[in-house]
Order: sequence, then structure tokens, then C-alpha cells
Amino acid sequence: MFKSLSGFRDFYPDQCQLRNYLFDKWKFASTVANFFEYDVPCLESLDLYQEKSGEEILSQIYHFKDKGGRPVAMRPEITPSVARMVATKANALKKPIKWFNIGECFRYERPQRGRLRSFYQFNADIFGENSFLADVELINLLINSLKIFGLTESDFRIRLSDRKMWAFLLDLIGVNSDQTKEVLSLIDKYERITNKDWENKTNQLLGSDKANGFRNTIKEWLCLKSFSDLEQFWHGYKFDNNLQQGLEKRLEEWNSLLKALKALGVSDFVELDFTIVRGLAYYTGFVFEAFDCENKSRALAGGGRYDHLVAKLGGPEIPATGFAVGDVTLKDFLESKNLIPNTLQGPYVYVVIDSHKMLDNALSGVSILRSLGVSVDYPLKKISLGKQFKIVHSSGAIWMIIYGEREWRTHKITLKNLKNGVESLVSPEVAFESILSKHN
Amino acid sequence: MFKSLSGFRDFYPDQCQLRNYLFDKWKFASTVANFFEYDVPCLESLDLYQEKSGEEILSQIYHFKDKGGRPVAMRPEITPSVARMVATKANALKKPIKWFNIGECFRYERPQRGRLRSFYQFNADIFGENSFLADVELINLLINSLKIFGLTESDFRIRLSDRKMWAFLLDLIGVNSDQTKEVLSLIDKYERITNKDWENKTNQLLGSDKANGFRNTIKEWLCLKSFSDLEQFWHGYKFDNNLQQGLEKRLEEWNSLLKALKALGVSDFVELDFTIVRGLAYYTGFVFEAFDCENKSRALAGGGRYDHLVAKLGGPEIPATGFAVGDVTLKDFLESKNLIPNTLQGPYVYVVIDSHKMLDNALSGVSILRSLGVSVDYPLKKISLGKQFKIVHSSGAIWMIIYGEREWRTHKITLKNLKNGVESLVSPEVAFESILSKHN
Repeated sequence: MFKSLSGFRDFYPDQCQLRNYLFDKWKFASTVANFFEYDVPCLESLDLYQEKSGEEILSQIYHFKDKGGRPVAMRPEITPSVARMVATKANALKKPIKWFNIGECFRYERPQRGRLRSFYQFNADIFGENSFLADVELINLLINSLKIFGLTESDFRIRLSDRKMWAFLLDLIGVNSDQTKEVLSLIDKYERITNKDWENKTNQLLGSDKANGFRNTIKEWLCLKSFSDLEQFWHGYKFDNNLQQGLEKRLEEWNSLLKALKALGVSDFVELDFTIVRGLAYYTGFVFEAFDCENKSRALAGGGRYDHLVAKLGGPEIPATGFAVGDVTLKDFLESKNLIPNTLQGPYVYVVIDSHKMLDNALSGVSILRSLGVSVDYPLKKISLGKQFKIVHSSGAIWMIIYGEREWRTHKITLKNLKNGVESLVSPEVAFESILSKHN
Repeated sequence: MFKSLSGFRDFYPDQCQLRNYLFDKWKFASTVANFFEYDVPCLESLDLYQEKSGEEILSQIYHFKDKGGRPVAMRPEITPSVARMVATKANALKKPIKWFNIGECFRYERPQRGRLRSFYQFNADIFGENSFLADVELINLLINSLKIFGLTESDFRIRLSDRKMWAFLLDLIGVNSDQTKEVLSLIDKYERITNKDWENKTNQLLGSDKANGFRNTIKEWLCLKSFSDLEQFWHGYKFDNNLQQGLEKRLEEWNSLLKALKALGVSDFVELDFTIVRGLAYYTGFVFEAFDCENKSRALAGGGRYDHLVAKLGGPEIPATGFAVGDVTLKDFLESKNLIPNTLQGPYVYVVIDSHKMLDNALSGVSILRSLGVSVDYPLKKISLGKQFKIVHSSGAIWMIIYGEREWRTHKITLKNLKNGVESLVSPEVAFESILSKHN
């Protein structure tokens, strides 16, 4: 017997409906915010991913040479492709570009709970606008695309951080720019490593003299929970002129951003949290992750500002901010919260065919109802009335129509509402009208 | 500058909307006929395709070894995967299984008009029912899934043939079973090869004595256009008992099938045409293709009955019939008929922000309208009123709201209907109600 590959899913109708339930909600949340859907190829030149993420990503990618000898890769993520698309038509596209995509991605990882080799990502991005309002619009969409499933602020939070604010901090504690990447990658692991490891690694990186002060400041820094904490923190320090102006401007942007999120009614979902730095090297401003409140190791989504990627891929400098949500983690999360509806629907009408002589009349009725947009099913072979009734009742149909020979002599059919059991003998025209009047 | 691979498409929003327009129509036509959506992995074991189609398919497939050394393939079609899914859960699934899928497929072919390396297929199949009514239901869905775009019987036709009827014919003209495949593959090319070639190849295959009679019968056979032609043709011949019974039963099934298609109101779309044999080796009964009436070399869709594939893939014997439609050919066809609507929509409401002081009030309004399901856009940075009006008018919005400082002093905003130009100064509550009352 053939099987699907490990880490890949067969979507039987109930699973497909559930998947589509996620897709439809994501689409709805994006559309009301006037984001437009786009899509990118499943297969791209391998160097597109090397350019964005470096060589290390190769170990996770399905890549091979195609029959023309080109190194190609099945997309492990959407961002490089969409940045490529924006780069290609940078001048022709109206700004701000508010786009979303729901697409399959592929990564060769060990399959485990919450992690598969094929998964879907919901990506949303805004290109061409560097105002904090673009970050606000995007964070707002992320929150609404989770709220729409019935999740509340006691279920998930957005942990908000800022690569620019981090730059001021690193400057303050004297980390020079060639150490930045290593320090941030250490911070990224902060919640997962032991105290001992933290001490050793910071000593190693900065020297034990410097490291002690570093650790104290970082500890204080990572405890900041609100904008007033943040203001308070910086109150004691003073940079020289240019830097100080930059810091004050950035604090003002933070203030505006948080005020705008409040005006949008979503500030209860947002926490300041500088432990978030985002692993990838290319973030440049506000960064954030959405987390399960009960299990902070479960990240539902992540994103942030990445102003230089389009240029890196050969386009002009175009500011950008975006996020991605994965379907596997979200589905698990919604299941744990009992927020998965039973979505598989049967036909709206089931047409029972009393005798084979009635087949043509019944088919004609089926055709009329379907052309009116009503979902209709009927038996695809001769079967007894008793069996047909059984099928009707397990089908989930709301209405049953019976085409009987005797009734048809007076151009009548039996119509039964299966919700309330009311049955009547009426002409097909009247029956169809009754059905349509209750159909949305 | 990075580019997408040749034969792969970037879907910018207008193209994505058009693609989704096809998808939505296919989905609608399937759903009213109570077909359920499923999906299968993009990547499968390579041997799944070898088992179904033999080694020759390898030249068209994107295949490679994954990091675990498994020979894997990007799906060139959906049928082997869905047959595998049915085989896996054969007993648990309620019959008849009426399923559809809209999915991306990949073939390494030379890109040309109507043929890309990545394309979408709409697949519909019925498993577990061998009655002619399953063939009818499927052909009916194919017709309705094309009609739904506004295509009529002067635009496309279904050319209907039958591998069983072909078997009677081959028996009649004495083609033995090990020549069947070669003869049918010759018929498949009948409309495209020269008379000379046809003569040579049939001589070669059958010997020149036999070939002459063969060609005459075939000529007559391929001219049959209606059921009465078909009855007429067989009227002159008589098999021995068993075969004759089989033939008569099959003629009766043909008659019932055509009557049922008539009852469904779609018989004007159907032509009898025995030049259709379908290339693939695995078809077992009624087979059909959908064609452009003006350009018969443009096949829009193809399908038929394939009763043994599920068993071949390790499952039980389960009858099956199905079809596939490709998005590239259909899109080209609809374009040639001017049946592609302009689908790209802007926001329903555009919110103009008169002064930055009004930002929070405006954002609160944006949030309320969006939560009511209305698509809303607004400027993501400070821009002049004049520029905002320009954006509004190019956005496609139906309504404009202006948050002005002066008006807000009396808790009023300006509401303008951009269709009829009517403008009023009202409270946000009244404005939102007006907008909602016209929104569907």
C-alpha cells in the first residue's frame, strides 16, 4: 500500500474543511483591512534563499537541480519571493503595498508535534511605508486574524520589541557593531539557557569585566513591561546629541504606536518584551511575536520590520514590515481552546427517487435547484426507499424531496423539512420556492 | 535582479484575483453538486507515479532524492494521490465518494502558450459507484463548472466516447488484446496524422490485408454522431451470445446516460465522438473531453472511468470516474470569449484623516467598521487632504468618511457616497449604519 511521505498531510474532506476554515478567516481579516491577495511560485531559484538567509538555510530546504541543471528549491517561506516580486515592479506598484498570501511551505525537518515538512503560512506585509502607522496596521491585522477565531487577550498576546531600541541599548553598554549579531542571537536564547551558560557565554563574548555590567543592564532591560518602564529606563541615561535625538524620536514613535493600537481597541493584546529579537538577521525596527499566554514557548506568529530586503534582492530601497502565521501551531492551539467548529456540511437538499421511472423528473428538479445555488444530492444508483431514507438522515440535509410515481400523476412531490419534521405534498415549483426562501 | 523560474508564475493581486475567480466558480459548482473538497501533498513518493503511468512519465516529472535518500516527486497530477487516499481508507469512507480538489501541479515541459511548468488543476472524482449515473453526475459537473463562467453550447462541447464500446469494435474487426493499446494510441493521434501515415502505421500494425477492412470500419465508426447512429452501426452485426448480451447492455447504458443528461438539461453540450480514446492506459468505460467549438485542438478538460486504479495502488477494487480541468487553457479560453470580469476590488470605505489630532478617533472608527465586516482603508502616514482625496478616487471605494477637527467638536464626521456624490454631516453611529445598510 502506498503512503504519503512522513511530515506531509493527506487532507480528507473533514481535515480539508478545517484547513479552509483557517484560510477563510485569514482571508476575511485581511480583506476587511484592504490587504490584497498575491501568490508566489512553489519552486524558486535556490540562490534567492541563500541571498536572504545565508548558507545555513540549505540544510532545511528541499533543493535539487532541475532537468535543465538549475539549482532550485521548494519554498521554505514566502518572504524572499514577495520581496522579489516587489523589487521587480517597484515603480509600477501603488504604495503602500498591503498584501497577504496563504501558501504551502516546505522544510526538511524532523516531523514532530506542531512541526511538519509541509505546512501553510499566512503572510501579510506592507511595503513602501516607513511610518509607525504601517507597523500598527500590520500588528492590528495579526491580532484581528487571531481574534476572529474567538481567541481573547487571555489566550494570546503580542510581545513587542524593537531592533532600533536594542541598538541604543547595545550602544549604551558598549557592545560594538561586529558583536551585535552574536549578542542578539544570545538574547534570542535567553529564556531557554541556564544561568551558568548565560554567564559563560557573555563572559566569553565580552570579557568578564564588561560582561558583569552587561548582564545587570540586560536583566533590568528585559524586565521592562510598559512604555512608562521604558521611558523610566532611559531617563537615567544621556547620549551625546545625535544619538540622544534619535532615542527621543524613537521613544515618541513607541508612544504613538501604542496610542494607535489603543485607539484600534487592541492594546490589551500587546506587551512590551525585549526578549524578542527575532532570529533572522534582517529585521530593522519593531519586531513582535504572538504567544500562547499559558505556554510561552508556543509562538503562534512572528514578524517585524525589514527595510533592506527588497534592495538586497536587487530592487530599490523600499521599507517593509510583515508577519507570518503557521497553520499547524494555530490549529493545535485552537483545538486546545475548543475553538474548532464542526465545519463539514452535507447537502442542503436530498432528493429521494421512489421508482426508476421518476429518475428523469427527479434529475430535472436536481438541476433546477443546483442552478439556483442550492447544494443537492441524490442516489447514483437504484436503491430501496428505506435505504435512501437512511442516507438522507445521515447526510446532514435540511430538506428532503421525494419524487413518487403516484404523487407525480398530479404533478406533486413530497417536501419534508428535516429540522421540524413538517411534510407537505406540493408542486415542484412551490417546493423549490419554500426551499429557496430559507436558503442564504 | 532575481527572477521567477521559467514556466512559473508570480501572481500579483490582479492575477491572483483572476485565479481565485476560477477557483471560486469551480468550488461553487462542486459544492452545489455536493462534492467535498480534499487535498493531497505536493510531494509524493516517486513510485506512486511510476505505478500508475509507467516509466515514461519520469521525463516530465520534477523528481529528486530528498535528504533521507527517498526518491520523491512534485505532483504532476492529482489522480494517483487521491486514489492512494481512497485505497488507504477504502472501508471507512461512505460511498459514493464525491470529491473535488483545486491544486497546483508541476511538469517539466517546454513552456509555451497554454502550457506552463506549474499550473492548477480542478479535479473531480466519484469513487465507489459503477452505475452510469455516476458518469452522468460527473459529466454534469464538468459542464456546469464551465457553464458557470458564461460559456454556452456554442462555445464548448463534451465529446463522449467509451472504452467498452471500443472493445466491442476491436473485437469485431479482429484486433487481438495485445494490439489494443497500440491501436488506441494510433486512434488518439487520428486527427493529427496524415492519411499516408495512417495507412502506413495501420499496415505495419495489422498487416495490409487486415488493415484495409480495419480502416474502412474505423472511418465509419469515427463518423457516428448520435445514439441512433451508434444503434444503427451495431444493427448490422451480431456477436455470439455472451458478447451480444454485453453489447446490448452497454447500448442500453448509453441510452440511459444520454437520457439522464437530457433530463439534467445539459445534453446540448454532449456529442458522441469515438475519436476520443484518452491517452492514458487505465481508462475502463465512458471517457470524454471538453473542447473549444471553434478550435477542436484546444481541449479544456478530460476524464473518464478508471475502475482499477485504486486496486492497482494496493486498495480493494473500487470503481471510479473523474475529470481534470487546467487553469491555463481555461483562462486563455475565457479571455478569447471576453468572459473575464474585472475582479480587483478596492476598499468599501476610505477614511480620510483631516489632521493628525484626529488619528485616534479615525482609527477607532476604522476598527468598528472592520469588525462589522466592512473593508476599510486609511492613510498610513500624514498626508495632505488633497492627496488623500486623490487616493480615495483611485481606490475604488464606494464611501468616503472624513474625520475633521472642526466637525468633531460636535461629534460629527463627513460621509460621502462616491457613487451618487451625496454628502452629509452625521455622527459616526449614523454614518456606520448608512454604510452597513447598503453593504452585503
